[in-house]
Amino acid sequence: MLDDNKTVFHLIEGGSDEQDLALTLAENLAGDESIDMDDIAVLAQAEGIDPVTTDGEKSDRVESLVDDGVSVKACSNTLEMFDLTESDLVDGVETVSSGVGELTRLQNDGYAYIRP
Amino acid sequence: MLDDNKTVFHLIEGGSDEQDLALTLAENLAGDESIDMDDIAVLAQAEGIDPVTTDGEKSDRVESLVDDGVSVKACSNTLEMFDLTESDLVDGVETVSSGVGELTRLQNDGYAYIRP
Amino acid sequence: MLDDNKTVFHLIEGGSDEQDLALTLAENLAGDESIDMDDIAVLAQAEGIDPVTTDGEKSDRVESLVDDGVSVKACSNTLEMFDLTESDLVDGVETVSSGVGELTRLQNDGYAYIRP
Repeated sequence: MLDDNKTVFHLIEGGSDEQDLALTLAENLAGDESIDMDDIAVLAQAEGIDPVTTDGEKSDRVESLVDDGVSVKACSNTLEMFDLTESDLVDGVETVSSGVGELTRLQNDGYAYIRP
Repeated sequence: MLDDNKTVFHLIEGGSDEQDLALTLAENLAGDESIDMDDIAVLAQAEGIDPVTTDGEKSDRVESLVDDGVSVKACSNTLEMFDLTESDLVDGVETVSSGVGELTRLQNDGYAYIRP
Repeated sequence: MLDDNKTVFHLIEGGSDEQDLALTLAENLAGDESIDMDDIAVLAQAEGIDPVTTDGEKSDRVESLVDDGVSVKACSNTLEMFDLTESDLVDGVETVSSGVGELTRLQNDGYAYIRP
């Protein structure tokens, strides 16, 4: 049906285990040589924002995802809510004006949605 | 790919924080002037049914969503399970015979799916 | 838009209540005579793997789903992580090399995604 393999992971939970799972799934998909992926995205929002900030305990894993070509996006509504700015984000993380707007846009563009 | 922006939020969790998040995301999308949305829907099911009932603590927020044109839907299997009837629902909330059937139908119809 | 009704349930949580809910939703959809479903799939992954193993407390419900024609799939990355093999799975459960790859493939193929 669609010609491309594109996937977005919704990183929205605050628990450390839940965040680990979301990051692991994105890492596994990015590292899986048997699947020809056209794009992998991670959308961080609400309590899921911590890993994409430089002070986040899991920021090194997000750095690696960015290095591996994963599109990591942070919801600017969430940044505002937590008094964060773009300068608090891991290098290479993009901001999007609305996390749910971006998830809608990506799904319209053929991305599969996965909520770990 | 698709010409319309349509989004359905799956309100399925019983925790107050999780319900707040789901409602906030729907409110934000409905109130975002920068996104031209053709439809926003909320599908309430299982432990997520409480906010769409008149006795629910968050029923005022659901009333506002309905007033703002959001399509709020309640799963009738869930109503039966909790001994609720249509008269227990906030004005303007529709019932659907199957919550998961409706989520399937909406996604087939081009709705993006978001599970807060 | 799409001609078929196809739905995949993502079974990824370890809590007993969450697993019960995922299985109940799949059972309800499979048993709903009012909806003409072309396929129903369950993708078990991470902490959600237990019900699809023969030793799992809810394995009888997964057996019934398989008997009812539901496609139940287990992520082989997860099996490896928990030192499980195909012989530990309920009869009729298929393995897929990547759970998230399969979820992407199914959504590309028109499956609606539901994350209970």
